[in-house]
Amino acid sequence: MDDRIRAHAETLVDWSARVDPGDDVVLRVAEDAHDLAVAVAAVLGDRGANLLATYGSDEMTRAYLRAHDGDFAPAEAERALYDRADVYLSLGGGRNTAATADVPGDVRGEHAHARAEVREARMATDWVSTVHPTRSLAQAAGMSYAAYRDFVYDAVLRDWESLAAEMAGLTEILDDGDEVRIVADGTDVTLPIEGRTAVNSAASVAYDSHNLPSGEVFTAPVGADGEVTFDVPITVQGTALRDASLVFESGEVVEFSAAAGEAALADLLDTDDGAKRLGELGIGMNRGITRPTDNVLFDEKMAGTVHLALGRAYDACLPDGQAGNGSAIHVDLITRMGEGSRLVVDGATIQRDGVFRWEEGFDGQ
Amino acid sequence: MDDRIRAHAETLVDWSARVDPGDDVVLRVAEDAHDLAVAVAAVLGDRGANLLATYGSDEMTRAYLRAHDGDFAPAEAERALYDRADVYLSLGGGRNTAATADVPGDVRGEHAHARAEVREARMATDWVSTVHPTRSLAQAAGMSYAAYRDFVYDAVLRDWESLAAEMAGLTEILDDGDEVRIVADGTDVTLPIEGRTAVNSAASVAYDSHNLPSGEVFTAPVGADGEVTFDVPITVQGTALRDASLVFESGEVVEFSAAAGEAALADLLDTDDGAKRLGELGIGMNRGITRPTDNVLFDEKMAGTVHLALGRAYDACLPDGQAGNGSAIHVDLITRMGEGSRLVVDGATIQRDGVFRWEEGFDGQ
Repeated sequence: MDDRIRAHAETLVDWSARVDPGDDVVLRVAEDAHDLAVAVAAVLGDRGANLLATYGSDEMTRAYLRAHDGDFAPAEAERALYDRADVYLSLGGGRNTAATADVPGDVRGEHAHARAEVREARMATDWVSTVHPTRSLAQAAGMSYAAYRDFVYDAVLRDWESLAAEMAGLTEILDDGDEVRIVADGTDVTLPIEGRTAVNSAASVAYDSHNLPSGEVFTAPVGADGEVTFDVPITVQGTALRDASLVFESGEVVEFSAAAGEAALADLLDTDDGAKRLGELGIGMNRGITRPTDNVLFDEKMAGTVHLALGRAYDACLPDGQAGNGSAIHVDLITRMGEGSRLVVDGATIQRDGVFRWEEGFDGQ
Repeated sequence: MDDRIRAHAETLVDWSARVDPGDDVVLRVAEDAHDLAVAVAAVLGDRGANLLATYGSDEMTRAYLRAHDGDFAPAEAERALYDRADVYLSLGGGRNTAATADVPGDVRGEHAHARAEVREARMATDWVSTVHPTRSLAQAAGMSYAAYRDFVYDAVLRDWESLAAEMAGLTEILDDGDEVRIVADGTDVTLPIEGRTAVNSAASVAYDSHNLPSGEVFTAPVGADGEVTFDVPITVQGTALRDASLVFESGEVVEFSAAAGEAALADLLDTDDGAKRLGELGIGMNRGITRPTDNVLFDEKMAGTVHLALGRAYDACLPDGQAGNGSAIHVDLITRMGEGSRLVVDGATIQRDGVFRWEEGFDGQ
């Protein structure tokens, strides 16, 4: 077994999920995540946790949903499982990212609706999502299998303690700040953040961060004025979006365009009122992620990028009792912070040309 | 997909498990049982049942158990799952029948012990065990993959309704009978069965029968006198047993021999007092099973064989409140009923040369 698989398993169990002896762990294993599952089983055994593995097969889900009439009964046994579970670990890594493409949308919707309580019970555990590098994901990223494995492990096997400390510094800056300005190629936007709380997303439940890899600091902007061009290519709801550009006035999108996928972008903005407003400003901090792979789990964490999400804000960023932007969607769009870019908080430049001011090579001029 | 996979799934869900709309079904999927799992998912979707798939990976179990110190905590979340589940379907079919061969026996024992309540909760559901034909199982049977698939589907895809009716006839004969005599090559044994209840094992929870395939009628003999030679080769606890011969006096083994595996047979008989006595007399009735494959799930159901089990008797065969033979073991040994054989109940021959008296070709002389 590739030593990196074992290291991935240890990072997941110890750093991310903080598994304790005696914990009841539910481990979801996607169709091709077997090797990582074996490694995780060994680490869980060593830590004295209980293990129940579930089989997360997209092909089974497709077969089940296509055969079902859409009138779903409450899944009480599964709910009981998650009500009692301490930890839920999801190992993604299927065989075909399009495996459920021909499931009717209404059945999919009914199924999700009927399972809301199962999902809530699962999210109430110490849950963490990660992926095992598979040929299918390599293909989706446009990469060879060997190169994709290197890519995933570079992203996952970080010095998380040190990155968390670095991100804590940025979190503090954002918490103290009232306004963020982002300047980049095709982008000059100002985002008030007064009263909002930044989250140090350090790939650990101890940081209320549930993805491995992670490596971003994010908050919920109160408004937005200016223009942003999202030059990291991304597939949104099945459509390739290229160089989407949004113009904001008083927090709302008033103009938009895209080199590809403009109609899909129009539909997206039309979802509801909140879809025209921002729910998140995120700043990528993971230097292990050096290229986009059309997978938001990785792309939005890439160091030298920022992302803005249209739609729903996360509660963690809001003062108690205050509602943030609400919407049925939360779609992350990503901008590279390249040559000539600046990230400015309350007038102070904290990143220039993609380099933070505490990093070597930062140009303070 | 092979049409037989879908037919197997339908037989499992409808005939064997009698799944109802809204049932919470837990489906255990072994490492290479994916194709059958997809077919079962489609049938469950169509029947309106809920589905949670678990991943039954021997390689994960090995990794987990080898890493564990043996001090297992109660698996409360898993217990809660089975407490609420209506149906448990196990799809065997791994990649290596020896995958857990290097797990220390004491850890395996502690694990089984700690999971007794999980197992009980699972056995309280409408549970059914079957296997998907895999290359690993074909290899264990000494067969090509194509031939093994044919073998499994011939065994599974029976006219179960008609077989159940035929077996009901034999069940009645045994229930009315006081004594069974088995005569075959190297075998002449008399087994009192007065007061015992025969079970019609028709591969359905409706018959209290939990294996697919099944197809046997079994009861619990009160005693045994005479000699039996078990000429169907079988592997018992890792050792190949060939032509084992047992001599019984007043229900107890007083002499034994074997062409291969005699030492293992001696150990087996030495397990405890009950290991020297019989817990079961079974009569194979499944004509789809035409050859032994060193897999007791199939071999003991083979038409034209009888089997006797050393050790524990099943409660279903005993009058209420009466204890049968007790033992830590229950090991089935199988005899072919070939040319010259006779199965006699209270003096009446009910099978000769492997042909029942209600079948064409029965020689009543």
